[in-house]
Amino acid sequence: MSNKIRWGVLGGGGDSLIGVLHRVAAGMFDAYQLVGGVFNVEKASSIAFAEQIGIPTNRIYANLDELISEEKKLPENERIQVVSVLTPNFLHFPMAKQLMKAGFNVICEKPMTMTHAEAVELETIQKQNNALFALTHTYTGYPMVRQMKKMIAAGDIGEVQKVDAQYYQGWINPIIHDKEKRSSTWRLIPEKSGISCCMGDIGVHAYQMIEYMTGMDVTSILADLNHLYDDNQMDIDGTVLLRFGKHIKGVLRASQIATGEENNFSVSVYGKKAGLRWEQENPNYLYLLEDGQPMRTLKPGHVYNSDLSLDGTKLPPGHPEGIFDAMGNIYKGMAKAVRGQAYDPAEFPGMRDGVRGMQFIETAVASHQEGNVWKQL
Amino acid sequence: MSNKIRWGVLGGGGDSLIGVLHRVAAGMFDAYQLVGGVFNVEKASSIAFAEQIGIPTNRIYANLDELISEEKKLPENERIQVVSVLTPNFLHFPMAKQLMKAGFNVICEKPMTMTHAEAVELETIQKQNNALFALTHTYTGYPMVRQMKKMIAAGDIGEVQKVDAQYYQGWINPIIHDKEKRSSTWRLIPEKSGISCCMGDIGVHAYQMIEYMTGMDVTSILADLNHLYDDNQMDIDGTVLLRFGKHIKGVLRASQIATGEENNFSVSVYGKKAGLRWEQENPNYLYLLEDGQPMRTLKPGHVYNSDLSLDGTKLPPGHPEGIFDAMGNIYKGMAKAVRGQAYDPAEFPGMRDGVRGMQFIETAVASHQEGNVWKQL
Amino acid sequence: MSNKIRWGVLGGGGDSLIGVLHRVAAGMFDAYQLVGGVFNVEKASSIAFAEQIGIPTNRIYANLDELISEEKKLPENERIQVVSVLTPNFLHFPMAKQLMKAGFNVICEKPMTMTHAEAVELETIQKQNNALFALTHTYTGYPMVRQMKKMIAAGDIGEVQKVDAQYYQGWINPIIHDKEKRSSTWRLIPEKSGISCCMGDIGVHAYQMIEYMTGMDVTSILADLNHLYDDNQMDIDGTVLLRFGKHIKGVLRASQIATGEENNFSVSVYGKKAGLRWEQENPNYLYLLEDGQPMRTLKPGHVYNSDLSLDGTKLPPGHPEGIFDAMGNIYKGMAKAVRGQAYDPAEFPGMRDGVRGMQFIETAVASHQEGNVWKQL
Amino acid sequence: MSNKIRWGVLGGGGDSLIGVLHRVAAGMFDAYQLVGGVFNVEKASSIAFAEQIGIPTNRIYANLDELISEEKKLPENERIQVVSVLTPNFLHFPMAKQLMKAGFNVICEKPMTMTHAEAVELETIQKQNNALFALTHTYTGYPMVRQMKKMIAAGDIGEVQKVDAQYYQGWINPIIHDKEKRSSTWRLIPEKSGISCCMGDIGVHAYQMIEYMTGMDVTSILADLNHLYDDNQMDIDGTVLLRFGKHIKGVLRASQIATGEENNFSVSVYGKKAGLRWEQENPNYLYLLEDGQPMRTLKPGHVYNSDLSLDGTKLPPGHPEGIFDAMGNIYKGMAKAVRGQAYDPAEFPGMRDGVRGMQFIETAVASHQEGNVWKQL
Repeated sequence: MSNKIRWGVLGGGGDSLIGVLHRVAAGMFDAYQLVGGVFNVEKASSIAFAEQIGIPTNRIYANLDELISEEKKLPENERIQVVSVLTPNFLHFPMAKQLMKAGFNVICEKPMTMTHAEAVELETIQKQNNALFALTHTYTGYPMVRQMKKMIAAGDIGEVQKVDAQYYQGWINPIIHDKEKRSSTWRLIPEKSGISCCMGDIGVHAYQMIEYMTGMDVTSILADLNHLYDDNQMDIDGTVLLRFGKHIKGVLRASQIATGEENNFSVSVYGKKAGLRWEQENPNYLYLLEDGQPMRTLKPGHVYNSDLSLDGTKLPPGHPEGIFDAMGNIYKGMAKAVRGQAYDPAEFPGMRDGVRGMQFIETAVASHQEGNVWKQL
Repeated sequence: MSNKIRWGVLGGGGDSLIGVLHRVAAGMFDAYQLVGGVFNVEKASSIAFAEQIGIPTNRIYANLDELISEEKKLPENERIQVVSVLTPNFLHFPMAKQLMKAGFNVICEKPMTMTHAEAVELETIQKQNNALFALTHTYTGYPMVRQMKKMIAAGDIGEVQKVDAQYYQGWINPIIHDKEKRSSTWRLIPEKSGISCCMGDIGVHAYQMIEYMTGMDVTSILADLNHLYDDNQMDIDGTVLLRFGKHIKGVLRASQIATGEENNFSVSVYGKKAGLRWEQENPNYLYLLEDGQPMRTLKPGHVYNSDLSLDGTKLPPGHPEGIFDAMGNIYKGMAKAVRGQAYDPAEFPGMRDGVRGMQFIETAVASHQEGNVWKQL
Repeated sequence: MSNKIRWGVLGGGGDSLIGVLHRVAAGMFDAYQLVGGVFNVEKASSIAFAEQIGIPTNRIYANLDELISEEKKLPENERIQVVSVLTPNFLHFPMAKQLMKAGFNVICEKPMTMTHAEAVELETIQKQNNALFALTHTYTGYPMVRQMKKMIAAGDIGEVQKVDAQYYQGWINPIIHDKEKRSSTWRLIPEKSGISCCMGDIGVHAYQMIEYMTGMDVTSILADLNHLYDDNQMDIDGTVLLRFGKHIKGVLRASQIATGEENNFSVSVYGKKAGLRWEQENPNYLYLLEDGQPMRTLKPGHVYNSDLSLDGTKLPPGHPEGIFDAMGNIYKGMAKAVRGQAYDPAEFPGMRDGVRGMQFIETAVASHQEGNVWKQL
Repeated sequence: MSNKIRWGVLGGGGDSLIGVLHRVAAGMFDAYQLVGGVFNVEKASSIAFAEQIGIPTNRIYANLDELISEEKKLPENERIQVVSVLTPNFLHFPMAKQLMKAGFNVICEKPMTMTHAEAVELETIQKQNNALFALTHTYTGYPMVRQMKKMIAAGDIGEVQKVDAQYYQGWINPIIHDKEKRSSTWRLIPEKSGISCCMGDIGVHAYQMIEYMTGMDVTSILADLNHLYDDNQMDIDGTVLLRFGKHIKGVLRASQIATGEENNFSVSVYGKKAGLRWEQENPNYLYLLEDGQPMRTLKPGHVYNSDLSLDGTKLPPGHPEGIFDAMGNIYKGMAKAVRGQAYDPAEFPGMRDGVRGMQFIETAVASHQEGNVWKQL
């Protein structure tokens, strides 16, 4: 009998990239065994997919209801311990809710819910059921993101005085300038993807990262979003002014019309003593800026890094790891939690990140709609 | 008799760095001959300085009044043709005004004036006197800045849809956190340096560059500035939301508390077809981003560059030129104008840049003080 | 019954990093199932390790002899199909030999053997037994390495005229300068690690990559190695002049005393029409240099890449993948081969790479010892 | 009467880029006044050029003989003090020789001479005449080159153990592959440009820089050069193995067929304690590599730099200076020497650099021609 964590997956079948990402991540530390789930809407497809990826088909279910009822029949030491929710966005909330109510731990893709109200409800359910919950803000799993968080927490840069985050992509460009496409792409239809496109999809990553790295809460925001066309209902670009307190300010910039940008996500945090900068497309570099000193470039795997950072590095310095490894680190942290081992809460984002994120999205849209005004968070 | 332009200088004596910058720039293309001026408040010092830099002392004057009256006595073909104003900021306006009224052409350090009203007045005076006027926004002299401007004008990136400019420094950090220093540094005293520190000193560079590169006017702004301490009257950091039209937006970020940053000024402009990015600390690189294409890195001196860019490059590709060369290009452009030769207006910034810049500063401060509201420009 | 490839592993137990690398890689595309092996010298340790990584213990064997004899008793459709050899270097040859003779396919860590003679012998055995054999020169699995190879093959840079490869590390520095350490570290003892340290460990990577990327054979070399101390028997640094033909030359530089370098491996290939450069520490960038054109930076996942490159990318552009993903690509290629599917020989290095590599190492040492003279390869 | 150094120039007329470079450099610190010279072969052209660049024409001479005889007639305190030799390469030696014999100080473009024998002769003449002599290896004037030299001298990286220099260009590519062009370009004709093209033009820069930075002499070399075509007499690419002592080795790589490279000159020096790397195309960055420490990036203008480095920086950190500024620093150093002020010998390269450089070129060619054998230097 394997002592791996019994893992189930909802969604992620067919040629889903997110499915690959989660399976590779789960396999990275020999901790999880994929025992079943619902990969596709059609059970036959799910079974075919199970065969394709080489796992037994006896615990492939028709739907979540069946998964829950059948798994509950199994003895506790055979039952699925944690389920990853990789379904379309609007299903994250109902599925996570149903799973936690039924006693399962959950790993959930973002966005956690479609609304802030749902997020708050999910938080209550988690507490009531004492479930473990991880939200896969993947980028927090990078070793140098973790290092940046720990250095800020340790006071290495002094009191934070300024934050600047950017998340620029250009992928929506060919869609947005085509009237036909912009009215038919699901990402731009509120009913299908919630009230925000750019802030909801990537702005929220930047927001989560800011609070993750600094350990501070944003207290109010003022957003200026851009729809680019009158007939487009959704923001595809925007700048959000941030306040963390009376004198601590910041800015969050996100765009899907930054033509030619791929996934240009970066965060700079400046403190009284020094600054730190991290860039997602070169995730293995962390830049430490001090007044009058040469810039230092920290890299993963060195003993000068924090335990949290080192725990997320598998090979010696100079062997680049990537986003699959970052997701692997999140699964590794969740595995410790599931097994009741000690872990650092910074090892995986969770319910609070989801609640704050949904609040950010709704507040940003409200701030914009009301004429670019300050709103509390 | 030399056929060089007869050049005078106000200020820039002693160990003034700005004096060195202008003298090197003026000497770069064999076009100017420094014939006189007022380098220091004390005439004796001016004369000593003239001797130190090896120029005749017979046209070193006690003050601007003397300079004007004495030079006017000379035949026109011996008289100073253009005067550079390198004095403390509050003297730029009265001196430029007096010079143009007296029939001299002017090269003026920024800020052009202390207020927008003065700027408007100076504009009138320039027109009335038909004087040539260059404002030394030095960075516009870089070959790749010029190239970026020309590519945008040529439609290489399509219609502009987003602008992002950053100007981050950290130099005021050791001052701002020391109560004694922050109350005594001239840069932080409105009476001495105008109503704004960060926007007035560097934000305005970013603003000028945005309008220079895009050829578009900013129509309204919303500013959120940071003073960091209640007892500090001046902004030392801020973010400014920009609008160029209903659907064209941008953001300008400037800071003097971005700890460890030196002179990190960069501009990104995204159009429908492509994006362009330029960074001041590596001024010889221009990045062209196109959807689905490899990023291209343009460099000075190649034939693929515009005439304006090539005119600002003295050596073949791979021989880095710097900020002195950028200033040299501005002087080169002004020399053409003084000599009545054909020139591209993009060769040097002028009166309109100064007027727009002062308007930007005052409007940004007003927007902030009135509670971060939109203001027309 | 899973349709995954039945995979066995020799070595890689305990806290072996190479073990993690291979398991993650094998798990990356849902293609392999680890069914057994010999992880450690002690069977009890192997079983404990199997439990730790959550696999059944019934096919954990005491040693390779037992593995072969027991697996041969199983029906062919249950028997291990491919075995990865991750044991100490001196065991690679005898184990790979025994495995292929017994009808198993082999994935072998480098160095393939301790001598060129062994390599030639192994090649014969492979042919006789018609076994599949992959040598894990991991770096060849990077998407942009594959892209570089395909672009050169497609004539994108024209006829190759110059090659320059560098592999600089600094890790041996603290050892080499300590008389005690340098006489006791296994890497510096010929009996334990073969006749070469630097060329044997990393020079050979550079050599393999040069032949892999260019598709050309090096015809002769002249090596100048450095031992740094008279009492050190092994090269820890060296430069090797390369000839590919009368007029096509190159240079290979490797060092373990390049203080402060981590794993700075890069390859530049210049052709008549253009040049290409790739750097291991930033593996997702490929630089295309053309006379008089802006440098282009190619990145993974774009449709402009070759099929071979795209086959090695799991996520869209801007999501960095790393060395685990590179190794995953090698396992993916081998999986196609094991399953009898079509594959590009460039998907994984094999026997010829091993034979050429061992020949390179011995020839480099001989060239050096004979006074830096040219030797045929 | 100006107290500037009275400066003469041979060559550099018309649209000579090297003329611009020297005039800008000489003008950079208010130290030199161009009083006369011979700009072109035709005196009328020289005079026209003098008028164009705005200097008096009374001391424009028909040729060097006239310059010497006429200047000698002037009182010593009016006579030209230093002459820059910017004529075609084959004239450097006879002109420098004649000038020093006549009592003038000389600033000489490289190559200093056409042969090593001439270089040795020139050295003797300099000593006999007690003349000041600067050889414009421009790159040594960069602040971070100077910083690297001083850090090595101060022992910051420990005893040097490995040196790697690269100078890659691609400019000859379009010429070398065209039979017509390669037989007619002066650079490839030994009678016109000496026995070496690549080593003579750029390899020697790398060589000089290695000895300049490390303060060590190369003791022997082994060169492998490439002519690419049988009918081409001159090297256009090559690798040179270097020895500084029994255990200190290095490599120098130079090419003019590194397609797409512009002026990619870099030097890495590794010591027992740390490594340093500098790259000409980004001259304001100096990388300090230490085992197990974050890489540090030093930049000009910071107080952590040496006096020699800071003396070569005119503006605060973050204001990039370039190659004109580097040449300016060399002129600045020479000005101190001419004026009898204290100066660091590292401020400008001189006679010994020229002698060593010519020796390097001849020895490299000999090593190659004799079959890639070691030759003493």
